[in-house]
Amino acid sequence: MSKRYLFAPGPTPVPEEILLAMARPLIHHRTPEFEQLMAEVREGLCYVFQTSGEVLVFCASGSGAMEAAVTNILCAGDSALVVQGGKFGERWAEICRAYGVRVHLLEVPWGEPVEPELVARALEAEPGIRAVLVQASETSTGVMHPVRALGEIVRRYPDTLLVVDAISALGAVELPVDRWGLDVVVAGSQKGLMLPPGLGFASVSEKAWRAVGRATLPHYYFDFAEEAKALRQNTARFTPAISLVVGLRDALERLRAEGLDQIFARHARLAEATRQAVRALGLELYARRSPSNALTAVAMPEGVDGSKVEQVLSGKYGITVAGGQDRARGRIIRIAHLGYADRFDVITAIAALEMTLNDLGCRVELGRGVRTAMELLQ
Amino acid sequence: MSKRYLFAPGPTPVPEEILLAMARPLIHHRTPEFEQLMAEVREGLCYVFQTSGEVLVFCASGSGAMEAAVTNILCAGDSALVVQGGKFGERWAEICRAYGVRVHLLEVPWGEPVEPELVARALEAEPGIRAVLVQASETSTGVMHPVRALGEIVRRYPDTLLVVDAISALGAVELPVDRWGLDVVVAGSQKGLMLPPGLGFASVSEKAWRAVGRATLPHYYFDFAEEAKALRQNTARFTPAISLVVGLRDALERLRAEGLDQIFARHARLAEATRQAVRALGLELYARRSPSNALTAVAMPEGVDGSKVEQVLSGKYGITVAGGQDRARGRIIRIAHLGYADRFDVITAIAALEMTLNDLGCRVELGRGVRTAMELLQ
Repeated sequence: MSKRYLFAPGPTPVPEEILLAMARPLIHHRTPEFEQLMAEVREGLCYVFQTSGEVLVFCASGSGAMEAAVTNILCAGDSALVVQGGKFGERWAEICRAYGVRVHLLEVPWGEPVEPELVARALEAEPGIRAVLVQASETSTGVMHPVRALGEIVRRYPDTLLVVDAISALGAVELPVDRWGLDVVVAGSQKGLMLPPGLGFASVSEKAWRAVGRATLPHYYFDFAEEAKALRQNTARFTPAISLVVGLRDALERLRAEGLDQIFARHARLAEATRQAVRALGLELYARRSPSNALTAVAMPEGVDGSKVEQVLSGKYGITVAGGQDRARGRIIRIAHLGYADRFDVITAIAALEMTLNDLGCRVELGRGVRTAMELLQ
Repeated sequence: MSKRYLFAPGPTPVPEEILLAMARPLIHHRTPEFEQLMAEVREGLCYVFQTSGEVLVFCASGSGAMEAAVTNILCAGDSALVVQGGKFGERWAEICRAYGVRVHLLEVPWGEPVEPELVARALEAEPGIRAVLVQASETSTGVMHPVRALGEIVRRYPDTLLVVDAISALGAVELPVDRWGLDVVVAGSQKGLMLPPGLGFASVSEKAWRAVGRATLPHYYFDFAEEAKALRQNTARFTPAISLVVGLRDALERLRAEGLDQIFARHARLAEATRQAVRALGLELYARRSPSNALTAVAMPEGVDGSKVEQVLSGKYGITVAGGQDRARGRIIRIAHLGYADRFDVITAIAALEMTLNDLGCRVELGRGVRTAMELLQ
């Protein structure tokens, strides 16, 4: 018997009931039944994004929604300030460059959050910047960027938008879109929303809609205005990923039933327990400050290869975590406590990590991290 | 009890076994298990597309793959010849225009296939045309365009590509990509592949790959070269729609087990039975020539509103068909015999149509169409 546990920061586990809901026979998307479904989904998305605006739904992964954010609000030659402190910050820059947007890089060391003051200064120095692109939770490093503070800075510039990749943050950490003045917030289905990958989302503020009206970058499949028009009629412009939308309704209902405050508190508790357990084992967090409550990136001790840890966790213990990407390859493992996760997931992950480290000759006291987590999770 | 039947030309019914396969717990996409899955999928797609080249897989609906086809092979200011004989022909033109491609329209009356001779003449008259964009099966009209003949014409032009939307044709009608010289062939998951919507596909010929090397239209999410690179390592560039890919493996296995020749013969038989049954009822086909074997568009008799027929079929009989779009709205209904469809689906659809027409005061002899279909399907 090989029982498997999925603790990667996306895809995350999907509740069994939702898996089965998505296995129901397909319904057609040009029917009153689908319209009713979309009406519920629209309402649920507004709740989770904490916005009174429309949250657009794309049949695409989160990166598609990131591209949509860029091409729907900017023109070729526009300047954008990209906060680049990890792999997904790099993705913002790549997308901008692919479309001829001038990128001002604000490079942040991997494992650190951006200093809001640096964003403020960059905007002062370059008044032509039309968008600030950032991650809420940088999935590659496990760092939270100070999105709230950035919202306060960017809202002082009438022609500058704050665009937030909340792919691993939405439904895990507090991110009140309207209240914090976040202009475009992008998310995906396979993280806090507890669904398989395949849906991308974007909220659009009033300020962002004005930019949409002026933007000239080419796009067709990812079109904010056209998609919003379809959505207001409770439908989708192109054939949507119907089975995922069916699951989405159920996932949103679950989130609503638990309540956002409880959800954020649960993620905070699980994250804190994971972090304390990791520290109790003498390991360090890769996020030196502002660690994300969605996932914990654990720095591997000297002489331990993170890829090897990942392999043993998977091969011997049935535990899927994520390794490091690019410059963090082999140097970290990333353990998610995101979405459909509870205290015993944390305990399982820490127990497996302890056993794996011992297997690899890195002696840790068995149960020390687990006990620490248990004390915090009781 | 309300038992439902889905006879729309997409989404089409998904076999129960595949629905349940997709309901299995999520696997991570950066694992040997997923790589094994993708290796099988790649092979199965080559079989279904009848190509030795790579078939790219996108997390998007078919329209996303259509956009990918345009932006990966053309430059701004390039000329494209668009065969426009229905709603999806219009989509080719819209995508081209969104990206600054000059569109030469070859307008074909709805319900008719394009004359290959007209394409040949257009290419002679405009030697700068870089791509001919066409549908194999125009889902909005139920017409097959003569793709094979177009392949013979376009292959004479070394710098012109034939781009085929096979979204409702793939896995339903003969379309040997390599043999017919089709340069880019686009498909979606929710038609002949018997899956939910959410995956888009594109095959790319050697000739098309050379154009990819020269193309300069901006794109990021839909990138042929990057996606092919990831695919050759049995992975995907961005988080793929994992659950749909799991279903895809099973669907491809089924197609292989039945065999393409048998599949095409089955679709031909079901289509012919539907057409003869419709004619036996005194109704006309909307496709005056070259009707598609994937779906049958039935012209409504004078005084009968197709939207009303659609409503009664759905509300009273539990049968979902598609109505007409745009200029065909209210004038046709479209019955699919596509993908997971057998003889009793045709009999059910015709039986329901007969009853519905009688309900609406359009007297037809009950059982006349059904009997005609049965004779052909025995």
